[in-house]
Amino acid sequence: MTVTDTPATALHEVLELGKDAQDLLFRSARTANTFTDEPVTDEQVRAIYDLVQWAPTSMNTQPMRVTLVRSPEARERLVQHMAPGNQAKTAAAPLVAVVTADREFHETLPEVFPHAPNAKDMFADPDGRAAFSKFNASIQLGYLILGIRAAGLAAGPMTGLDAAGVEQEFFPEGDRQVVAVVNIGRPGPDAWFPRSPRLPFERVVTEA
Amino acid sequence: MTVTDTPATALHEVLELGKDAQDLLFRSARTANTFTDEPVTDEQVRAIYDLVQWAPTSMNTQPMRVTLVRSPEARERLVQHMAPGNQAKTAAAPLVAVVTADREFHETLPEVFPHAPNAKDMFADPDGRAAFSKFNASIQLGYLILGIRAAGLAAGPMTGLDAAGVEQEFFPEGDRQVVAVVNIGRPGPDAWFPRSPRLPFERVVTEA
Repeated sequence: MTVTDTPATALHEVLELGKDAQDLLFRSARTANTFTDEPVTDEQVRAIYDLVQWAPTSMNTQPMRVTLVRSPEARERLVQHMAPGNQAKTAAAPLVAVVTADREFHETLPEVFPHAPNAKDMFADPDGRAAFSKFNASIQLGYLILGIRAAGLAAGPMTGLDAAGVEQEFFPEGDRQVVAVVNIGRPGPDAWFPRSPRLPFERVVTEA
Repeated sequence: MTVTDTPATALHEVLELGKDAQDLLFRSARTANTFTDEPVTDEQVRAIYDLVQWAPTSMNTQPMRVTLVRSPEARERLVQHMAPGNQAKTAAAPLVAVVTADREFHETLPEVFPHAPNAKDMFADPDGRAAFSKFNASIQLGYLILGIRAAGLAAGPMTGLDAAGVEQEFFPEGDRQVVAVVNIGRPGPDAWFPRSPRLPFERVVTEA
């Protein structure tokens, strides 16, 4: 993994997670804008899901779905709906994942939340269900980005796209909301911009 | 860290992140419902933020804010707005974090996205801004939960609460949306339920 412009502070020693793992997931990993030609294997994708599936969601709903875009045909169908600044890298990345929220996630509740057999009835309202689904799939996107990094790969998450266009193109049944499109691969030359500033602790974390 | 009912599969070897770190963040860590009395220190909270701050958000907007609830007075103000099933554990956890999305995050853009001086103008619409803020703060909640686990602590994220009530109680200026409330501490006796099933790979990840 390429060394970046983000050294650890002394606070890293307070954590139980080792420094190398911290760097792999948070400091050395960066949002990549270019990638090498090295393919991302199906086994890598399976290993990423095998890990991130365990992270929590509300009522274990797990509404995130991932549609892998590999073939030139599928790639072309996706790229046309990306914002101009995201098209070239989406066309060139070894693997592209369309991350969506399943509006019909509640159908799986008898299976994933078996101790409350009527939980599905809480989600009769389609609008409330859509908001719940998008919210939990967004939390899962956070897990997924770190899972991609756990595989030693770089993620390039993008929201600059025509979400309605992607939904019509890939999910004409209307059961999905696009959360993000994520390029995945090994970082290529000049893969990232200089790191932008983070907000200082005092402005993010306060005491009531 | 307590050994749980989630053994690693052979796929764990495909990842660059070591097995101990995988377990710490994803397999052994669980949503805790009881906690020991051991305090969560300010230094631990700073170390968690020092790590998770680096994970990506759209346009580096970083809209998540964290309000720590420690004092008995603040705890009481919060607990009354939690769902009945969440009240006792929110009252008893060593530390409680109210995670919110800052509706006025765009005011920080000249600082956090300095290479696009007019980026702030994209967020003139309050409704669009609120949705963008909630979405990105939700992704950041995913990072935060894993960051708490990286500190060797257990997180207990909850959305069963009266969000409008919490917002009025703690953020009367109307600039925050509640994302979740998270109990934080060392897991106590009988801290968790048996692990609920995850969806199999084939139903979550498909190819276009």
